[in-house]
Amino acid sequence: MENLKISFLGGVGEIGKNMTVLEYGKDMIIIDSGLAFADEELPGVDLVVQDISYLIENKSKIRGLFITHGHEDHIGAVPYLLDNIKTPIYGSRVSLGLIENKLKEAKKSNVMLKSVKAGSVIVAGNFKVEFVQVTHSIPGAMALAITTPAGVVVHTGDFKIDFTPVGNDVCDLKRLAEIGKKGVTLLLAESTNVEREGFSMSESVVGKTFDELFAKIKDKRIIIATFASNISRLQQIIDLAVKYKRKIAFTGRSMVNVSDMAIKIGELRCNKDLIIDIDKIDKFEDKELIIISTGSQGESMSALTRMASDNFPKVKLNENDVVILSSAPIPGNEKSINTVINNLYRKDCQVIYNELADVHASGHAYKEELKILHSLIKPKFFIPVHGEYRHLKNHQNLAKELGMKQRNIIIPEIGMQVEVSREVLKICGTVPAGEILIDGTGMGDRDSNVIRDRLALGQDGVCVVVVPISRASRQIVGLPDIISRGFIYQDEANEIIADAKEAIFKNLQNQDLKNLDGAELRGTIRKASTNFFFKNTKRKPMIISVVVEVDDL
Amino acid sequence: MENLKISFLGGVGEIGKNMTVLEYGKDMIIIDSGLAFADEELPGVDLVVQDISYLIENKSKIRGLFITHGHEDHIGAVPYLLDNIKTPIYGSRVSLGLIENKLKEAKKSNVMLKSVKAGSVIVAGNFKVEFVQVTHSIPGAMALAITTPAGVVVHTGDFKIDFTPVGNDVCDLKRLAEIGKKGVTLLLAESTNVEREGFSMSESVVGKTFDELFAKIKDKRIIIATFASNISRLQQIIDLAVKYKRKIAFTGRSMVNVSDMAIKIGELRCNKDLIIDIDKIDKFEDKELIIISTGSQGESMSALTRMASDNFPKVKLNENDVVILSSAPIPGNEKSINTVINNLYRKDCQVIYNELADVHASGHAYKEELKILHSLIKPKFFIPVHGEYRHLKNHQNLAKELGMKQRNIIIPEIGMQVEVSREVLKICGTVPAGEILIDGTGMGDRDSNVIRDRLALGQDGVCVVVVPISRASRQIVGLPDIISRGFIYQDEANEIIADAKEAIFKNLQNQDLKNLDGAELRGTIRKASTNFFFKNTKRKPMIISVVVEVDDL
Repeated sequence: MENLKISFLGGVGEIGKNMTVLEYGKDMIIIDSGLAFADEELPGVDLVVQDISYLIENKSKIRGLFITHGHEDHIGAVPYLLDNIKTPIYGSRVSLGLIENKLKEAKKSNVMLKSVKAGSVIVAGNFKVEFVQVTHSIPGAMALAITTPAGVVVHTGDFKIDFTPVGNDVCDLKRLAEIGKKGVTLLLAESTNVEREGFSMSESVVGKTFDELFAKIKDKRIIIATFASNISRLQQIIDLAVKYKRKIAFTGRSMVNVSDMAIKIGELRCNKDLIIDIDKIDKFEDKELIIISTGSQGESMSALTRMASDNFPKVKLNENDVVILSSAPIPGNEKSINTVINNLYRKDCQVIYNELADVHASGHAYKEELKILHSLIKPKFFIPVHGEYRHLKNHQNLAKELGMKQRNIIIPEIGMQVEVSREVLKICGTVPAGEILIDGTGMGDRDSNVIRDRLALGQDGVCVVVVPISRASRQIVGLPDIISRGFIYQDEANEIIADAKEAIFKNLQNQDLKNLDGAELRGTIRKASTNFFFKNTKRKPMIISVVVEVDDL
Repeated sequence: MENLKISFLGGVGEIGKNMTVLEYGKDMIIIDSGLAFADEELPGVDLVVQDISYLIENKSKIRGLFITHGHEDHIGAVPYLLDNIKTPIYGSRVSLGLIENKLKEAKKSNVMLKSVKAGSVIVAGNFKVEFVQVTHSIPGAMALAITTPAGVVVHTGDFKIDFTPVGNDVCDLKRLAEIGKKGVTLLLAESTNVEREGFSMSESVVGKTFDELFAKIKDKRIIIATFASNISRLQQIIDLAVKYKRKIAFTGRSMVNVSDMAIKIGELRCNKDLIIDIDKIDKFEDKELIIISTGSQGESMSALTRMASDNFPKVKLNENDVVILSSAPIPGNEKSINTVINNLYRKDCQVIYNELADVHASGHAYKEELKILHSLIKPKFFIPVHGEYRHLKNHQNLAKELGMKQRNIIIPEIGMQVEVSREVLKICGTVPAGEILIDGTGMGDRDSNVIRDRLALGQDGVCVVVVPISRASRQIVGLPDIISRGFIYQDEANEIIADAKEAIFKNLQNQDLKNLDGAELRGTIRKASTNFFFKNTKRKPMIISVVVEVDDL
């Protein structure tokens, strides 16, 4: 008999590029298609997406892409996916609005975007996918309850339980409880905040903090940096702008794009005359303004980062500005954010951030919320998803504390395929999976020489050693020329390079180069150069040897 | 009349390389001489120290180097300082023990190391320096109360107020109160944790947590990673090793060095047979062992990092190991620590860290502790030190909340010199200051081409373009040769490089190169290459052009 198979193409044991694939017989559905941002281990790389060769192999089976919510790590790879396969895309209005913006930039049309609401049920071959409202840091976030021949599979997407959210995105615990009561074979639940005790803070607390701050700020200008996609937060700021008689100006590309989209689809509600163009802010007094900006993660080219380093002509900061970073650092961004905060203080702005006031609420369930989820769904099997390995492991531990047996839990890895029936959950194999680096117009992988070479070049630089070799005698016939970059500081450069020329010349002169082929000769030059430089500088620049054949005079 | 002058050579508006200089008339004293670690903005750089040309200029005035405590950011640049000036060094036994280790490595002898205790008073020209016991995350940490002709200056060094520390390092509030009562002209106080509300956790809480954990761990092996210099923490672990009948093995270079030194000077107290060599651990059962290791910051070559990635033959980890990271991430290290934790979980170790249990206490005063300090010292003037700009600014705000006038506070910057009398605190000028990058055997500065080039090379790699030019006609006479590293992925490399050769050839063929000098010719080649590559790959590798003169056939 056929079984349900689930393959993990991303988002497990790592942050980002979420993608899960369910298949049964001739039908396959995809949950999310996100990207990951490259870190310092992938220098120069623009983005990272999933290796989707498994999907390409099974093109004809694909019945749909189901989007849980519109964050980059869940939708960012959609254009790349659509370059390779054709599929309808199901998601909330906000998710699809954000995808549409992406498709416009990628100049893609003719995409089947199917808008759904909480409660919508999509039949996709053997699968019946119900969208269930959850709360997250973006509106229109949905869990999926998927009825399959092997029973019901619940995928939470990213979620939190917020009893007082902004707008209508209350996590539908009642529906989750009903689904749980009818019996759930497998729960796939996100794990991001499993290490945090208690409950996450409600989004509406952020609004209250803003209200108190705005009341105190009075005559100063307010600049708020936050995630563009956190439309509920934008809504709270807009509502307070009305209360405090201020205008709103959006700045930063994604902030302008997302707010435009959200206003257009009615997700962000405000009077048109409340919003002013960023180029018009000079016509208003400081006390009449709120600027909402990108850059809450200290991204190098973002509006706030540029404001802080005096590199953003539209907004010049001074001591009459209050800057609020309404965000928490994504791990890895701490230093860049620090730099922005330090620069803001140097401009004599008042600066308010997470450490100083409740200006941010996480969108991910804390430990007690996860316990509620598990208790309502009461699945037979459990697979923790979305998180680094530590989070998946701790989520497993949590499930065991709640009474689940170890044998009913699997910690997934990328490329793992599991088989699920009503009775058994087991690993059944692997599928091709991994990461594709998007780098300019090219694509590569982490293990390529390109990445290794960039890491090496970035540490000790490069030396080009140009060696003149007699065409006739095959011996070195003059001092090499040496061109270095990123290797040696001015004070010592002339002396060391002059010594290197002599030393390499002598070294090669003492060797019989006659019978070496091109690669061997270059290797010999490289070795002589590396030895000299390491001995004299304790550094190992990359050596590129160039052989120039010369005719003897 | 002469005034007291204070110059800030490091540690203000930045983390690390602390150094403050006091001078009056013909006398000068230095407080601390620390290093900073290079971050990703300084790729390939080993260490960063202060520009001390101001000290070199004033060599004859220097009466002593006074060490507040033995952390790298306060003593790490001592060898570099001693390369340039001669001075006695005053500090606690532990501080000097750590400095001695450094001097041994740097093969320096004949250094005047003068051990002091809490209450010691050193007369250094016009200055009378009293050492006052404080608590910090290393024993022998001292504040300095410096009597000068302009009144008393108190420098806290790094400190916390811990009423139940381990050992005898209770912060001497009574003495600080006496000093404050007699009148303090200027307070220089550290600012690291000024943004944290309340009081820091006591070090003895960590011991209690360990005790509870060890009681539960029973038959498993225990590995603890912590800072080698946190000797009080080592003492707590040693005491519990006795209680739970386990042996201790130290591993990691600095852990072995520091524990040896601390045992030798009697700062770390334990029976000799408690300590076993790391090479002997196989002779003991798991339940008889505690391994204390370096690597709590995820440092790439540290013992724990290598254990976690199966690259440390002395200690092979498995599911019978409990690994405790007794530390908190230093900003910027979050990702490396994450990677280590994930790897440990993948080895099925039980992993315990800051987020999961009270296994670390900060060594820096929180807000309420700083308030106690200010209230006891009651200085006329205040300068916040040790911290990024945000911390200095918030420390200023704290002082203002406590009633100080803005005009009595200065936020220092590196290179700033202030003048202090009993009546006036003011900025009086700047002194040469900045950073020296230590890079292999060389030295450089942040603005050098070397750093800029490394950052560029690390992003998009390098292309060497070798162009054959006729010696006679000065025109290009063949396809260029192109060697690239870190630029282009295998799949597309051949095609793009072949196209580039043609395109660059044609471009140069159509130009009159005859009257160009060498630099102009290389510039022309660079421009043609950059244009082609950016157009075709959206990337900008560094171009190194090599002109080869050939004789026409």
